[in-house]
Amino acid sequence: MKQKLNIQNNEVGVFAIGGLGEIGKNTYGIQYQDEIIIVDAGIKFPEDELLGIDYVIPDYSYIVKNLPKVKGLIITHGHEDHIGGIPFLLKQANIPIFAGPLSLALIRNKLDEHGLLRDAELHEIQEDSVVKFNKTSVSFFRTTHSIPNPLGVVIKTPPGNIVCTGDFKFDWTPVGEPADIHKMAKIGEEGVLCLLSDSTNAEIPTFTKSEKIIGKSIMRIFEKIEGRIIFASFASNVFRLQQAAVAAVKTGRKICVFGRSMEKAIVNGIELGYINVPEGTFVDASEINSLPKEQTMILCTGSQGEPMAALSRIANGTHRQISINPGDTVIFSSSPIPGNTVSVNRLINLLSEAGAEVIHGKINNIHTSGHGGQEEQKLMLRLMMPKYFMPVHGEYRMLKIHSKLAQDVGVPKENCFVLENGDVLALTSDSARVAGHFNAADVYVDGSGIGDIGNAVLRDRRYLSNEGMVLCVVTVDFNNKHIVSGPDILSRGFVYMRESGELLSNGQKLLFEAVRQKLKGDDVNEHNIREVMTETISPYLYEQTERRPMVVSLVLKAD
Amino acid sequence: MKQKLNIQNNEVGVFAIGGLGEIGKNTYGIQYQDEIIIVDAGIKFPEDELLGIDYVIPDYSYIVKNLPKVKGLIITHGHEDHIGGIPFLLKQANIPIFAGPLSLALIRNKLDEHGLLRDAELHEIQEDSVVKFNKTSVSFFRTTHSIPNPLGVVIKTPPGNIVCTGDFKFDWTPVGEPADIHKMAKIGEEGVLCLLSDSTNAEIPTFTKSEKIIGKSIMRIFEKIEGRIIFASFASNVFRLQQAAVAAVKTGRKICVFGRSMEKAIVNGIELGYINVPEGTFVDASEINSLPKEQTMILCTGSQGEPMAALSRIANGTHRQISINPGDTVIFSSSPIPGNTVSVNRLINLLSEAGAEVIHGKINNIHTSGHGGQEEQKLMLRLMMPKYFMPVHGEYRMLKIHSKLAQDVGVPKENCFVLENGDVLALTSDSARVAGHFNAADVYVDGSGIGDIGNAVLRDRRYLSNEGMVLCVVTVDFNNKHIVSGPDILSRGFVYMRESGELLSNGQKLLFEAVRQKLKGDDVNEHNIREVMTETISPYLYEQTERRPMVVSLVLKAD
Repeated sequence: MKQKLNIQNNEVGVFAIGGLGEIGKNTYGIQYQDEIIIVDAGIKFPEDELLGIDYVIPDYSYIVKNLPKVKGLIITHGHEDHIGGIPFLLKQANIPIFAGPLSLALIRNKLDEHGLLRDAELHEIQEDSVVKFNKTSVSFFRTTHSIPNPLGVVIKTPPGNIVCTGDFKFDWTPVGEPADIHKMAKIGEEGVLCLLSDSTNAEIPTFTKSEKIIGKSIMRIFEKIEGRIIFASFASNVFRLQQAAVAAVKTGRKICVFGRSMEKAIVNGIELGYINVPEGTFVDASEINSLPKEQTMILCTGSQGEPMAALSRIANGTHRQISINPGDTVIFSSSPIPGNTVSVNRLINLLSEAGAEVIHGKINNIHTSGHGGQEEQKLMLRLMMPKYFMPVHGEYRMLKIHSKLAQDVGVPKENCFVLENGDVLALTSDSARVAGHFNAADVYVDGSGIGDIGNAVLRDRRYLSNEGMVLCVVTVDFNNKHIVSGPDILSRGFVYMRESGELLSNGQKLLFEAVRQKLKGDDVNEHNIREVMTETISPYLYEQTERRPMVVSLVLKAD
Repeated sequence: MKQKLNIQNNEVGVFAIGGLGEIGKNTYGIQYQDEIIIVDAGIKFPEDELLGIDYVIPDYSYIVKNLPKVKGLIITHGHEDHIGGIPFLLKQANIPIFAGPLSLALIRNKLDEHGLLRDAELHEIQEDSVVKFNKTSVSFFRTTHSIPNPLGVVIKTPPGNIVCTGDFKFDWTPVGEPADIHKMAKIGEEGVLCLLSDSTNAEIPTFTKSEKIIGKSIMRIFEKIEGRIIFASFASNVFRLQQAAVAAVKTGRKICVFGRSMEKAIVNGIELGYINVPEGTFVDASEINSLPKEQTMILCTGSQGEPMAALSRIANGTHRQISINPGDTVIFSSSPIPGNTVSVNRLINLLSEAGAEVIHGKINNIHTSGHGGQEEQKLMLRLMMPKYFMPVHGEYRMLKIHSKLAQDVGVPKENCFVLENGDVLALTSDSARVAGHFNAADVYVDGSGIGDIGNAVLRDRRYLSNEGMVLCVVTVDFNNKHIVSGPDILSRGFVYMRESGELLSNGQKLLFEAVRQKLKGDDVNEHNIREVMTETISPYLYEQTERRPMVVSLVLKAD
């Protein structure tokens, strides 16, 4: 693996620290001579097998090492996979941040929580802003996505313009502003050296449904509901919240908001004018419970089945203020991300058993993706007409399909680059090559520890989770070669100890005999006593239970 | 919870030991006076949170307690969720088994593996068989499903006929025989007291696609492929295997089979005439590798992303005989069950990165469900015209929707029973009531242990999996109140120990001081020394790492 980047003075380097081969932790870099522009700084939520890990962030070493060159961090929009990494990055490298109003509000909340707000250098940008550095400059274009005001980014460099679309769909009838297709056309006409485009829905051969269609079906559904409505969605989808709020108002309902991120989203949304309903629409918990059911709506988090979110707690009866009653209708205005299907299904069963009607799923037109399908990806390619193409924001299979789409609309195959995090693409105005690779591995955050959990620890956690642990411990007087205490056996997550007395006491006898024999020989030490214990107990336990718990043997020395 | 069933002499009792509120471990019981008929004996695969559990089976206590009354176990078809529990049931209760030819072959394999074949009483039935007991009798009707020869079951009892559909769809153009709709019509005309019907696809508002449609698109896809084909599907879907085999033969390919269950399925399928291709079509691994790629197909297990199955091993390069080469096409003739989406996606990425084309997903018409959608469920209800209806084989939300479908086609609401495992429905010819409930909880199988893993052990495994374990151990001479050895700290799955020397050695010092202080006082014993260690180390570790590992403290007594 080459660690040298080897970007020449006439080349612009394009790379990803996160976002290639994955949905999550988007962090892209554009480097021309001594200027580096970073686009987005996201986080990834760990998959199930990363036991106990809270977040996955990129390895920021390259940024930290080149900090004097890094001119700014540009944010396309405020989703966690684009801004969640900021606190971790800023702790290592205090880079000026440029973001739109809503993104900035969300970033401020986040930095405040981490005690980093005071020292952060934050710049608010608008879609017509131009951020000028010495040799490069950055401008923007308006797109549409599942959060208000997403921005595409154009980085002007001497070899040519690099365009990062950010997450986008083409919504011709959005809530809020439509994508600025005229500006995009101009950017394309001026010439795009390299396009980095969102690959999330590269497997979907259609055009993603408009947000307004969802609004209409929310209205239709609300009109038929006689009891209370519980509406669960992503807090960041502020336009969805607005549509639900409007439908609530039109059907004569007051709204009560539950879940911390939902409360913040409503506050931010009202401040920035995205949420717009008559005064007195939002009421608090005590008030909502005193109103007739048919005049109420609850807006809450938890549409992904997250166990600690409001909806799960409402469903299982552990929410302080709200519980499910027959006649309630719960609407999931969302679709489960792949890893959450089982927990969402379980939540639907639970709500259903508690007597609620549950409305979810595609057939109800109650959710639409924020990412464009193949037709929109091709439209973006046609508008930008890039010389070189680098699909980003996707797992490998999505990147690959997106690369083929680019070829279908005329980008030569040899100009399409399906790369990995850490690969560096070096471009002149008429050439492209993969110039090097730096380390861009996953970094795990667990509690306050960043990067201190490696594969060995995770392997142990997996092992422990599977069959538990058995501990054998003995105290030995090595001078007199005799057992001072033990051997004792203790287990956790292996068998229910109170019912396995015989299994363990027989094991103890075996251990005692084995250690005693070993002590009779020459050359005994902690190490080989430990070994003899493990080698004695493991096969015994397997024979008795057909399970292989983690066996930990410990020898204490008595002086 | 009432434990008494309280079925009267003029009533027939209908209950589920497994299959209600879940997809899996279908086990239904029909009881009239001193005769009990069991229909199916399935297993459930554990969800992720059941760490280390191999299978979930029902609690068979009710069957065991009433063994003299149990006349037979009737099998509808050979899927694991209908036959997987048989070995566990037979170990506790050797009941005569009645099953069709393919089911019986699969059951024989299974019993043989468990050393139970010799003593089992197995009866082969056909669709026109009638099994007569003293007061009840059992007859059958042919349905269609994703395994050959599924049977519906009619249990004639003096109060009326009970019909169990088994798993079904209505495939008008199946591979093999279509459903015997005329016989079903007759059964309906004769009168059905209670219908137990498959609810799996109650959320799907359509008619499930025919298997023949899949066959046609397999053929179309094969015709376009120039390199080697790797075809992954469920081993039990023998007709799918036959369709793939036919397409392979027509496009001039030899077939090599990988994966133990796939090999068995092909052997059984050929024996029973379901697999029918020219001699010499199936070749072994050495031969397949010597043929030109375009003349070969590999048929393998692993379409659900199972890490140990053939396809995963082929993808990650650990398969002994086969690896992925550019030009290979991998076809997933399956759809991921909800819990497997993430691992299937990962497998697709892996295959794709290795250079294979991957064909999967609904748009390719490469898979169809074995279960009928709402239109088929209504057709079954119309055919059977049951007086009482009990939706089975589904999670709660599916049972509930299925119950509404029954009401839509004319079953009165008060005659529909959405029940739980262990509930007993007692029916006369013109009345129905829930007569009682017996314990029908999940029983966990882990290694050779059945039912010995309870919630306490699972809680420990979850705890261990999340932040690992820290062990504190000390040897104390209680007579002289001094520390003989330790305290020592050991961890697994918590931090990487070699890099956490300081964290642990400072912890050790704290422990030493705490134990020494404690020993100065009166009334010291193992228990309170253990307590003081845990209470000292836990807050220290949290403060240092913001993690809460399981802390296990152990005090050894030196004599």
